[in-house]
Order: sequence, then C-alpha cells, then structure tokens
Amino acid sequence: MASVDVPVALLGYGTVGAAVDRLLIENGDEIERATGHRLRVVRALVRDSGKEREHQPASDVLTTDFESILEDDSIALVAEVMGGLEPTGSYVLELLRAGKPVVSANKQLLARRSADLFAAAAEGDVQLRFEASVCAAIPVIKVLRESLVVTNVHRVLGIVNGTTNFILTRMESGTGYEEALAEAQRLGYAEADPTEDVSGADAAAKMAILATVAFGSRVELGDVRYEGIEGIKPHHVAAAYTESAVIRLVGSATLVGDAVDVRVGPAFVDRHHPLASVDGPFNAVMLQGDAIREITLEGPGAGGVETASAVIADMVSVLGTNETGFLQNDASWRSLERLPPGELPARFYVHVEVDDKPGVLAHLAECFAEEGVSIATLAQHLVDGSAALDLVTHEAPAGRVESALDAAARLGDVRSTPEAFRLIAERGL
Amino acid sequence: MASVDVPVALLGYGTVGAAVDRLLIENGDEIERATGHRLRVVRALVRDSGKEREHQPASDVLTTDFESILEDDSIALVAEVMGGLEPTGSYVLELLRAGKPVVSANKQLLARRSADLFAAAAEGDVQLRFEASVCAAIPVIKVLRESLVVTNVHRVLGIVNGTTNFILTRMESGTGYEEALAEAQRLGYAEADPTEDVSGADAAAKMAILATVAFGSRVELGDVRYEGIEGIKPHHVAAAYTESAVIRLVGSATLVGDAVDVRVGPAFVDRHHPLASVDGPFNAVMLQGDAIREITLEGPGAGGVETASAVIADMVSVLGTNETGFLQNDASWRSLERLPPGELPARFYVHVEVDDKPGVLAHLAECFAEEGVSIATLAQHLVDGSAALDLVTHEAPAGRVESALDAAARLGDVRSTPEAFRLIAERGL
Repeated sequence: MASVDVPVALLGYGTVGAAVDRLLIENGDEIERATGHRLRVVRALVRDSGKEREHQPASDVLTTDFESILEDDSIALVAEVMGGLEPTGSYVLELLRAGKPVVSANKQLLARRSADLFAAAAEGDVQLRFEASVCAAIPVIKVLRESLVVTNVHRVLGIVNGTTNFILTRMESGTGYEEALAEAQRLGYAEADPTEDVSGADAAAKMAILATVAFGSRVELGDVRYEGIEGIKPHHVAAAYTESAVIRLVGSATLVGDAVDVRVGPAFVDRHHPLASVDGPFNAVMLQGDAIREITLEGPGAGGVETASAVIADMVSVLGTNETGFLQNDASWRSLERLPPGELPARFYVHVEVDDKPGVLAHLAECFAEEGVSIATLAQHLVDGSAALDLVTHEAPAGRVESALDAAARLGDVRSTPEAFRLIAERGL
Repeated sequence: MASVDVPVALLGYGTVGAAVDRLLIENGDEIERATGHRLRVVRALVRDSGKEREHQPASDVLTTDFESILEDDSIALVAEVMGGLEPTGSYVLELLRAGKPVVSANKQLLARRSADLFAAAAEGDVQLRFEASVCAAIPVIKVLRESLVVTNVHRVLGIVNGTTNFILTRMESGTGYEEALAEAQRLGYAEADPTEDVSGADAAAKMAILATVAFGSRVELGDVRYEGIEGIKPHHVAAAYTESAVIRLVGSATLVGDAVDVRVGPAFVDRHHPLASVDGPFNAVMLQGDAIREITLEGPGAGGVETASAVIADMVSVLGTNETGFLQNDASWRSLERLPPGELPARFYVHVEVDDKPGVLAHLAECFAEEGVSIATLAQHLVDGSAALDLVTHEAPAGRVESALDAAARLGDVRSTPEAFRLIAERGL
C-alpha cells in the first residue's frame, strides 16, 4: 500500500489542537502502517500566532488568517478544536460548503446547529465527523453508527460528565458538595465557573448528540430536560447507600413507541448496574437495543490527549471511507415527536418525613394509589418523634409519580417536601 | 446516495447464519438508509439442503456446492458462519485468493491460521474481517483498529468467556461448581461437553486474536498459557470475598518492553475494578494504552443474534472501505518475542495453612524475601489449632512468586500446598 501524504489543518491550537499535532507526529509511522496515509498538520488557525505555547508547532503552521485554510486546495481535511459557537460555526459551515471534510470536537456546536452543519456537508458532498464531541476517547459514535447498524437502539443511558461524577464519587466517602467541588477544581476536573458541568447543561448537550445518532431523529439541546447536582446533600448519598445504590448524574435517551425522551438528572443507580461502578472522572455509555441487548462503553470522558485521540480516529475514518459514501453523513433521517415529559416510564425512590401518628401511611399510600403508581418496597423509620418513609415504586409514568408527590406534599401529616430520585436498576440481561 | 444491490453468500446456515439472513431482510431499509447498500443473501452453503430449519431461507438459497459460491462473480462478499477448522479453512482461503472479501465469526480458525488467511487475503487483494470471532457483538476489534489508531495499547484484560463467568458468578451466591455448571448447561450457556469453555481454551483463542490486533504481532493459540476454572472451590470464592474481590477467569495480553505475554487463568478481581461488575454470561474487555488510559467494553459475549449483528457490521464495514485500502488487512506487522512466563509482573493473593507455633511466620516470610517478593498485606487466622495465612504481594515477577511458593511448600510447618491467584486491582485512572 503506497503511502498517501495528507496535509491537514486545525482550527485552534490549544490543549487539544497541540495534542493532535503532537500525536500525528509521534505516531506518524503507526498511522501510515495501519492506513497507508501520513497526516501532517500544515496550518492551524489561532487568534495570536505570537503567543508562547507549551508545544510549539513547526514554523509557518500558525496563522490568524482563516482564508489561508479555506482556500488552500492541498488541505484535505480540517479538525475543529477551537470550541465556541462563533466564529467557529461559520468557519465550519464555510469549510464544508467548500468541499473540505471536517472533524469536530465541539459538542455545543453539534448539539445546537447540527441541521445547518449537515446541510452544509451535503452541499459540499463531504463528511462531518464528531466522535470527540461526546465522551472524548470513548468511541460511542463510531460504535452506534458502524457496529450497531442492525440494532434498533431504543435506549441510551450515560454518565457523560466527568466533573459531576467525580464530585458524586467523592461525596460517597463523606465529603460535602462544596468541598468535593473545590477538590475537582484543584485537580483540574472542574472549571473555575463550574456551572456548565454541575447544572447538567454539558451532559444535556452530549445526550442530544447521542440521541440524534441513536434514534436517527434530530434532538437539539433545547429538547433535553436537565437538572444538575447542586442540590445533592450528604443525606441523599446516604439514602442511596441504604437502597444499595449510588447517586450519579445520569443522562437518558429513550424511544417510547415513536416518541423520544431525553433528559439528564441525578438518579439512584443500583450497585449491580454497570453504570454504578463508574468512578471519579470516568464516563460510561450503555446502549440498549434489539440485537445486542446492551453494550456498555467506559473510559475517560475528557482530557486533551484523549480528545485528540478521538479527533485523529475520525480523521483516519474520513480518509478510509471518503471514496465510498459509506455512511449517510447526517444520522437524522426521520422526525420523531417528543414524548410528553410526564409519560416517561421510570421507577422512583421517594423519601418523605411525616408525623408519627396513626393513618399517615394510609394517606400517603392513597396518594400513590390514586395515580395508579404501585409501590415495590417501603421502609418506615422513627427519628425523634417523627417518622421517615423510604419507598421505591414500580415502573410508572414520571408525571403520575410527580402528581402523587404533589398530593403527598399537601397532606397535613407530611413534614417535608417529598424528595424523589429516578432509580436505574434494570439491565438488558 | 443511490442504492447498491449487494448479493452475499454465507458458509453455513445454522443459528448465526439464519440470524444474519433474517437481520439483513428485517433491517434492509435501515442498512440501505445508513450505507446506501442493500445486502441480500443469495446463497448459503450447507451439508444438507433438505433439512428442516427454524428459519427457512428463500428458495434456491441453500446449496451443498461450494463452487457455486466461489465461481459466482455476482457474489460480492462471503460470511463464514459454519465454524470448524476444515473444510472451513480451505474454503475461506480459496474465496480470499479468488478475490472475494470474507467476514468470519470463527475464533479457532483465526487463532490458529491467521498467517495463512491474511496471506491469501493479500493475494486476492481483499479484506478479511473477524469482529464476531471475539465476544460476539462487543465491537472490540473495530475499536482497537479504527478508534485507537494513535494509542499504543500495552495491555488487554478481558473476561471473554461467558460460560465460566456465569459459573463463577453463581458460585458467589453459594452454589457449588458442579451445580453451577449444570445450571449453565440447562440455560444453554454451556455445552454438553463443557471442556472447551471451562478449561480456558476458548478464552485463550480469543486472547490470541486480541493480542495480535492490539500489539500488531502474531500471537497464536499455542502461544497462550491457559488454566481453567475446574479447580475453583467455594473456599476460593469466599477468600476472594474476604479480600474485597471476586474470582473471574481473566485473559490478559501484556506488552513488557518488546515482549508479549498472553495468558488466561482464574484471578481475584478487586471489587472496584470495572471487570468485577461483569455478571453472568456477559463479557468485557479493557484496553489500556497511552492516549486513552483505559477503555472498557462490556456486553453479551455470545448468542446467535448478537454474533450475527457483528457479522453484519463487518460486512457493512468491508463495503464502506473497499475502495480506499483503509486498513492494512493483516494487523500483524512486527514479530515480537514471547516474554518468558516467569517474568510477567503481577500481584498475587496467597493462602497457606501452617502449624500454629512460633517461627512459622518468620520462615514463610523468609521464602518471599529470598525471592525479592514484597508483601503488601498479611492476615493470620486460627482454625482448630492450625493457622491460615492470607497475604497479598506487591507487584513481582510471576516466577519469583512461584519459587517462593515452592520454597514455602517445602517448609516443615506448612500443612497444605500454598494456593495463589493473580490479583487484578490496578486501573489506568
């Protein structure tokens, strides 16, 4: 196999971009041996080409002139590793329309503007790949699109944010939320402003991308209901422990009939569930489908080198398939409706504090019965003259459980707002 | 994208073959939408075309005449799902030499004759893919070859045999070995003659294939040292529990400098290790490398539909890349030496029964010290006048630990042959 020289360009030369450049140089022989192609970064778009950099590229690589990439016919492929929505989005659109394949690590861009992006790719008749936009080096997009081609995937469950997973894991050993967050910041797992991660917004963007690929129907960030971990207290972690579970920020994308539900929120994950063993900053995605029951992919969900590894895998895949039109570029081929949020079937753990007097349990049970929600387990504890009830429901529409909780909150005997967490226990075994 | 009609043939029409045929028909639209190709089984080689079959193919599909597949120029691709070494091997070699791409689910063939097979594929200038030969629907070969192209993978750890994993999981709840095996047979997880599985031979073949792909150097079945689970007793399972571990049949392929070690044997897996949560008949493979730290893939490791799903993914991948010479067909490009088995660095759990008298511990400790094996933890228990010692070593060459155990066995105070299990605890975190 004769070696093909492939000049490539980067948009951005930060941590990820520099790692892409370095890995392509250090592993040039491996890539050539495996694929017959030698990829070289010949240009990288930056804001300030004079800035001091840890990894200094070859001279003449850095440029502040986007046109010098767009108009250079020798550049076969562009990796977008600059992040942000603008001017990044416009650059990517222009490159695609001009017939340059693009590999992007930008989850915000993919989660918000994929329809435009894929329309531009179709116009330019080139590929847009985006493995690195979700869970860094975990090859979930490739597996969904290329390995599970005859599996009707009907559910994706994921721990797709390492920051929150680290914080929740730390809280299991008794650390408080604030302290765990500070530790995550110290270790570089959380930003100085952690809002994007702890609010669930980051996970929501990733779930939008995964849902689109898994179900073949466009899901954008605005379609994802999300809730973060800011409200998680030590007593929630302890309650999960009592239920043989752990608290995790879980993203789920579920196909119910012909409707899609995508959400992110803290959930109790049963200890025997594969997602429960995902520790620290790691991510994992479970894909459930017809022919495969379930496949779980676990690994580091962030990191410059890890992300760069996924970017390069995509670059290589573009080159490997650009003659054949192997994949429909846009995974979205149908338009599925959104499931009304209350209709998602799920199990719930519920905690309620009540007065310790006759009839309370009956009143509470009545709230659930009236909504048709069946209770699987229930335990009552006495604490200083008041009683706490922990119960787990059978699967029921989420809205019914919410209504039952609202009714329960209005009971005179109930001392606190009932707390509920979705329970993830079932496997495809 | 215009649809391309792709006539394909099967060698074999048993459980997997029939599932391939059925999935291609049922998911024809999905495949066409995703790839622009419509795959149709036009011929399937069987021994007896008149036999009653659960899934009956279209008329004229079944044939007993191999030449009718070999010589039909319209057949673009062949999937080998008949198993066995001969005549299967000869058929596959002939097809490849004649320029027909082959997808194989045959681990024995790949683990024993890959050099011949890839030479034939090179001669015919066609692809040979084999995802389904290892862990059914878990896409570990594709991930190793296409996603981890810039990751120097230095270790592969796997639970790659579902039968033994089911038996060991059952033994954790107090079931004896024979009873667990009988249950596995009843459920269809174990053959009437379970030797291939329980001896570790099946896992060894899979590890040979994984090692070849991961390290780019040919590893054949004969290079793999393996040991099965026939000797696992309830007290071993209990000992693992005491050490916060579970017993699993673990395959490991390790690159130490420029030498390769591939082995399969029962090991203690720490409860926090991702492989410890692999329950029942599931499989999992952990890939450790430079750019990714570690990625773990878990899923069903067997099953007709699961295997068929992997066969079809390979068929689609062959079509997607056949114009580009995307991958060197033979992953093996170098010839690495075998690591002398005693040199593999590993941690061990050791159990010894000794007389309860002064000096025994000192003598035993001396055996380890003389071999330079450092002890990490040690616990001594008294049982009916004799004492039992459980210790865990730091990482040490396996041969040194074996020598220490041999020396310990010769001590007058030692009442039983010391028992040792490799301990898998470290992660790439």
